[in-house]
Amino acid sequence: MNFSSSLIEEAVNQLSKFPGVGKKSALRMVLHILKQKPEDAIKLANAIEMVSTQIKYCKKCHNVSDGDLCAICTSQKRNNQIICVVEDLRDVMAIENTSQFNGLYHVLGGVISPINGIGPDELNIDSLVIRLEAEVSAELIIALSATPEGDTTTFYLSKKLAHLPIQISTISRGIAIGGELEYADEITLGRSIVSRVPYAR
Amino acid sequence: MNFSSSLIEEAVNQLSKFPGVGKKSALRMVLHILKQKPEDAIKLANAIEMVSTQIKYCKKCHNVSDGDLCAICTSQKRNNQIICVVEDLRDVMAIENTSQFNGLYHVLGGVISPINGIGPDELNIDSLVIRLEAEVSAELIIALSATPEGDTTTFYLSKKLAHLPIQISTISRGIAIGGELEYADEITLGRSIVSRVPYAR
Repeated sequence: MNFSSSLIEEAVNQLSKFPGVGKKSALRMVLHILKQKPEDAIKLANAIEMVSTQIKYCKKCHNVSDGDLCAICTSQKRNNQIICVVEDLRDVMAIENTSQFNGLYHVLGGVISPINGIGPDELNIDSLVIRLEAEVSAELIIALSATPEGDTTTFYLSKKLAHLPIQISTISRGIAIGGELEYADEITLGRSIVSRVPYAR
Repeated sequence: MNFSSSLIEEAVNQLSKFPGVGKKSALRMVLHILKQKPEDAIKLANAIEMVSTQIKYCKKCHNVSDGDLCAICTSQKRNNQIICVVEDLRDVMAIENTSQFNGLYHVLGGVISPINGIGPDELNIDSLVIRLEAEVSAELIIALSATPEGDTTTFYLSKKLAHLPIQISTISRGIAIGGELEYADEITLGRSIVSRVPYAR
């Protein structure tokens, strides 16, 4: 593409590095920036720079945080006997939005994925072991994606933590609420039959 | 959504101002920024700020430009007897990519759209009239979208330029190359029959 201007070309190249954003979408974004006032573009640029350079991670759970410890770890209202292991920040937000969990988190920062060069050492697993050895917790919920990588990581964690007197559980898998049986994939449907639960009457 | 960090919240709010980008996509972008090195985020932030504050527009055709006049207007290889009127920069790029047009452009900066508060005075129409009165051109191609707004603007321009000795044409409308008749909409198909062309044998 011929962008007529090196500034536009540079902005399109930078914006098209975002996941799911191609050159055409990036150009739409640049045209949006050009239609806005420069103050708005500077606000956006500052927000991007600040989030990249000033962001802190909670020293305990590795969630993003404005201070040394995050709001969840420092809260007096949370149950510190239950720790939920998740892949990243989005999962913390997704679980928080359910309002069904009142414990603490531990953010791994990814899942074991040899293809992408991510082994256990790249993840926050050692700090989880140290954390569980130092503090007595009753239960660890492993809430990772139902993918081969997620399952591998769950298996690795369960082995790594086998020496600790802690109940390890995983989130339940099955047919989604509101989901129709005929549209569920075979593996999910099969697993939902194998791991059936007594009907509460 | 609870973003755990005010920096993330601000970045998500700013990024979700882009057209077609919601809070979830913006959050994906922020997580992408967090996975990158800070240098890359600073490059992106600089590109956004630069494109907004440093961009220049060609004084002749209103296309974006690195200097006072754009590369197309200053080129000796272009035919300055034909001027193509387009809505914005994207249309210039789209037509340039066809390699079928060798004339100059005039970028209106939009189309007449009373609903969005855009009247003729908000567009680069006066400068087009002045330009055509000052320079002798043989033909003006109006290449606007086939929407009610585009058609209105084409009609307005044709009236506004009626006093000038210039051939005014519009780009042809019809079935797209490679398009199947049965999938074409009725209006396009009807128009393609009304404006049929002699078959070149």
